[in-house]
Amino acid sequence: MAAKTNGYYDDLVESYLFAEVARRASKYEAEHPDVKMIRMGIGDVTRPLPPVVTEAMKDASDEMGRAETFRGYGPYEGYDFLREAVQRYYKGFGVDMELSAIFISDGAKSDLGNFLDIFAQDNTVLVPDPVYPVYVDTNIMAGRRILYAMSSEENGFLPMPEDIVSEEGKAEIPDIIYLCSPNNPTGAVYTREQLKTWIDYANANGSIILFDAAYECFVTGDLPHSIFEVEGARTCAVEFCSFSKKAGFTGTRCGYTVIPEDLVRDGKKIRDLWLRRQSTKYNGVPYIVQRGAEAVFTEEGEKQIAWNIDYYKENAKIIADTLDRLGIYYTGGKNSPYIWLRCPDITKCADYDEVIAGTPSAADPDAPLSWKFFDYLLQKAAVVGTPGAGFGTSGEAFLRLTAFSTKENTQEAMERLTKMLGTE
Amino acid sequence: MAAKTNGYYDDLVESYLFAEVARRASKYEAEHPDVKMIRMGIGDVTRPLPPVVTEAMKDASDEMGRAETFRGYGPYEGYDFLREAVQRYYKGFGVDMELSAIFISDGAKSDLGNFLDIFAQDNTVLVPDPVYPVYVDTNIMAGRRILYAMSSEENGFLPMPEDIVSEEGKAEIPDIIYLCSPNNPTGAVYTREQLKTWIDYANANGSIILFDAAYECFVTGDLPHSIFEVEGARTCAVEFCSFSKKAGFTGTRCGYTVIPEDLVRDGKKIRDLWLRRQSTKYNGVPYIVQRGAEAVFTEEGEKQIAWNIDYYKENAKIIADTLDRLGIYYTGGKNSPYIWLRCPDITKCADYDEVIAGTPSAADPDAPLSWKFFDYLLQKAAVVGTPGAGFGTSGEAFLRLTAFSTKENTQEAMERLTKMLGTE
Repeated sequence: MAAKTNGYYDDLVESYLFAEVARRASKYEAEHPDVKMIRMGIGDVTRPLPPVVTEAMKDASDEMGRAETFRGYGPYEGYDFLREAVQRYYKGFGVDMELSAIFISDGAKSDLGNFLDIFAQDNTVLVPDPVYPVYVDTNIMAGRRILYAMSSEENGFLPMPEDIVSEEGKAEIPDIIYLCSPNNPTGAVYTREQLKTWIDYANANGSIILFDAAYECFVTGDLPHSIFEVEGARTCAVEFCSFSKKAGFTGTRCGYTVIPEDLVRDGKKIRDLWLRRQSTKYNGVPYIVQRGAEAVFTEEGEKQIAWNIDYYKENAKIIADTLDRLGIYYTGGKNSPYIWLRCPDITKCADYDEVIAGTPSAADPDAPLSWKFFDYLLQKAAVVGTPGAGFGTSGEAFLRLTAFSTKENTQEAMERLTKMLGTE
Repeated sequence: MAAKTNGYYDDLVESYLFAEVARRASKYEAEHPDVKMIRMGIGDVTRPLPPVVTEAMKDASDEMGRAETFRGYGPYEGYDFLREAVQRYYKGFGVDMELSAIFISDGAKSDLGNFLDIFAQDNTVLVPDPVYPVYVDTNIMAGRRILYAMSSEENGFLPMPEDIVSEEGKAEIPDIIYLCSPNNPTGAVYTREQLKTWIDYANANGSIILFDAAYECFVTGDLPHSIFEVEGARTCAVEFCSFSKKAGFTGTRCGYTVIPEDLVRDGKKIRDLWLRRQSTKYNGVPYIVQRGAEAVFTEEGEKQIAWNIDYYKENAKIIADTLDRLGIYYTGGKNSPYIWLRCPDITKCADYDEVIAGTPSAADPDAPLSWKFFDYLLQKAAVVGTPGAGFGTSGEAFLRLTAFSTKENTQEAMERLTKMLGTE
């Protein structure tokens, strides 16, 4: 018998979204070398690591270079110094979390994907639509049945249990539920009351909520940072967090996953199953990186990351204020680095055909509006967004802009958008 | 429906080996506070990171702290600067490997476990016995059928296709074959001719060889460092490598996985499937760590790691020379940091019952010899090894010692062993 590959990979739809965005942007740039193109499509940070982090990593490098302070294999769950810092951070939201619940990871993405290993194949999975493509792809790879919770202006892009689309009209209850708040791509944030509804639903049905809180540092006011701020979550939820957006760790790789001792299925503690998975297939985050992450939670570290987060928030506000002035519907922008806006129907503009000439939208009159708007915005204003259609069915006619550019570029992009829509 | 856990986890045997060794060692230490216990059971390095590595990581930390040189998300396959360094390293063995084959990982263990994701569940897997427990556990977790290739003095702990144990006398051909050379735990190293036999077997049957080369840096003379030094490997093998033992990266986490473009199953390139898996469930190794790993391959880096490797090899030689003098059969010790020795039958020693009094071996007369020897060695000589029975059926009556202690302790441990066996 020859080795057989995982046939479920054949069911993956080639995710061309970001590659296609990059391709069209590069083509525009090559054809217009004299125009400054502004990229607001990528979800990657641009501000450097805070000085406390780099200093901590340099000190840790020195430690690793001396026999007396060298460290070999670390604990699978991460070092206690960092787990305890995370524990204190949760206390700040009023959440008392036991240390055994906290696992240090190399990022929310890895853990969100690998976490599925500890569940049986025949679980049914619910993902919101539009959605971070990783939730869908990781479950397709495992051959799991996927349901969707549809979003729209009507529910403010915050789908609730009643928005679950059941196949062939049957009422279906998912076993595993993905929630992301603040959401990627929409930037919408669930209230405590909304989360309570999901928690009650999960507890009533034995479902598990995989709560992606990668953008929690952007939350302000009374909105929840953590699902564990809401009663009942300890028996139905796992939370995935990241230093990526919080402290600029996209290229440094660190996050944490929180699995309360009270989360039990089939008579087993989920945190015990996860520890078994991790101790068998993982060897932890580099010591040096864990020291860098620890520094984020110091008083000085919190000041330095606040400066970066405020910088991105100021950009988000510039975008949101512009859309308010233009009367364009959007979500996000206030508690999120993402702005999710309804595309104005630029196909009615007198110059539409002329502007998009030579783009894929010109060749395909049936292209989704979000791609048409993308092309028009790129050709006329040299601004790059991400078309909503790429994030799911409910994403059509929307565009995602990110706040990770410089302030100057964000301002200029909004001036160009305003001018483009002719309301200036 | 409630969320269902992965039922295959119930089939895992609680791996108590290292925990039990640690427990017994700690008990001895607590009961004998005046005796210097020497630990030769762990497979973790003790020498610090080479200066070129720590300097490179400090420079990279500084880069990450400046906006002009900051790096966000990196390539899933790793940065080309490191992949090209690995490519040059392979040229040193006479292996021309295309860049697209080289994936940077956070260690051989993660990749060896996660690599199974891209294969169907109904593949039959072959593992050598004794074996690194991770090969077995990761396949049990996926519900795969496992065959074993048995080892002994007869085949020098280098099992060949004829050593495959088929269930119920049926001739069974595995789809996925694990090989580890230099081997953990036995330290034995396959020759080119032996690897050629495995390669021909795999190519004839369409099997894939997962070749764990984590200890290749200890290989000397004409023995192969890489399976790709042998003709035919490009169409049947994947190689997993690590900086852990080579450069002291057990707590810094970096390795690489090599998947030739020619490795195709079900009409698909295995490297393409792996890239799809990694881009969906992984975000790469920290930039800082990749810069540290790159420094390992510089001229100065190679000098510095050679110093560390030679240090461990010298320890291995001290152990091997002692066993030669004592007339004890062993494998490893020459091209490996592990020494795998046949346990002398200490149960015939006049003081056996007296020495092991109060240990688990005293309570269980039917305990495997390797645990009895472990207890006797600990109680009489205060030296900690790892009992072979913990690595599989064929491991019984053997003990693993590691060369990762200090030279002084290694010498003292061998003096104690010699005295214990009364041949001095």
